Amino acid sequence: MIIFAAMDTDLILQHVAQHIRLDEAEQTFFNSLLHPATIRRKDHLLLQGNVSRHESFIVKGCLRTYTVDDNGQDHVLMFGIEGWWISDLYSFLTQMPASCFIDALEDTSLLQLSKPNLEKLYEKVPKFERYFRLILQNAFVAHQQRINQSLSFTAGERYLEFVRKYPGLEQRIAQKHIAAYLGITPVFLSMLRRKLSGK
Amino acid sequence: MIIFAAMDTDLILQHVAQHIRLDEAEQTFFNSLLHPATIRRKDHLLLQGNVSRHESFIVKGCLRTYTVDDNGQDHVLMFGIEGWWISDLYSFLTQMPASCFIDALEDTSLLQLSKPNLEKLYEKVPKFERYFRLILQNAFVAHQQRINQSLSFTAGERYLEFVRKYPGLEQRIAQKHIAAYLGITPVFLSMLRRKLSGK
Repeated sequence: MIIFAAMDTDLILQHVAQHIRLDEAEQTFFNSLLHPATIRRKDHLLLQGNVSRHESFIVKGCLRTYTVDDNGQDHVLMFGIEGWWISDLYSFLTQMPASCFIDALEDTSLLQLSKPNLEKLYEKVPKFERYFRLILQNAFVAHQQRINQSLSFTAGERYLEFVRKYPGLEQRIAQKHIAAYLGITPVFLSMLRRKLSGK
Repeated sequence: MIIFAAMDTDLILQHVAQHIRLDEAEQTFFNSLLHPATIRRKDHLLLQGNVSRHESFIVKGCLRTYTVDDNGQDHVLMFGIEGWWISDLYSFLTQMPASCFIDALEDTSLLQLSKPNLEKLYEKVPKFERYFRLILQNAFVAHQQRINQSLSFTAGERYLEFVRKYPGLEQRIAQKHIAAYLGITPVFLSMLRRKLSGK
């Protein structure tokens, strides 16, 4: 269930300010296009087969993007934590049905930007082309590394990379989700952690 | 070996025109930032450990981005064919050593854009922010699909997706490269193709 909530734009404006400078009018216009929402732990932001209608900026909490294979096994594509944008980008861009689910692993506060509002933003404040180009660059690099690592890293190396990429997340979410992100069983993850902490 | 060659900008200007409109002065400025190069079959555009100093637009030919694991096994991350941009994007953006190799599977003609020239382009013709945002969106979606598919698709499904994504490429390059892209052995690929063509 998604609940509309009070709007806290400090974090998102800080994030934007890392990449582009907005004057006050531009900030106000940007804020006017954002919709705050909260999503409770275990609820879904997106169901596979539905269309991803928003880019969601995570103000607080944790989301998981995942698929389920024919054997009912979860495969975690990514986690999203504070300061990340999340969506099924393919679905958002093409408005075709999403190929993945997104659910909340903690109660989560979001600021959402719809596709029509994003198009308005590009039109009225073209420097957001630059902001989203930079966001996309970072996302692309992260995905390229993930492909590379899934092909050539050992499970231990993938685990260490997870810890580096999502600092503190290991203590916040269930181990089974981390195992599903690494492509290993929870039992093997547990062995791996014991082995690495024993070093 | 990279050889500097005559410049044919028709394909790249067509590609740009699919996304943004340039006037004649902007086209001329863009062209002035591009450097033509040819790279012979089996030669490298980029070595792992070197810095990826250009984004390269493929005018003709085929390149392969790959890594080699500790057992000497190749893993193909992507192929690049006519109309694609190719680089180690992580290395290009960060100017850190590349984590992959890029070599030519055919004699290949490129138009290269250096990082300083790309920054000049963004500064002088900001609508290129939009062009590269769109290119990055497509690349991001393709990578997201590749991660998803490597986790949840069967080898047969991955093969069919390869054929869809790179039309005609199967007839142009050695089967071992396709196997290394799919993450299977050449023998298994051969069995798979027999099975699928028998349907």
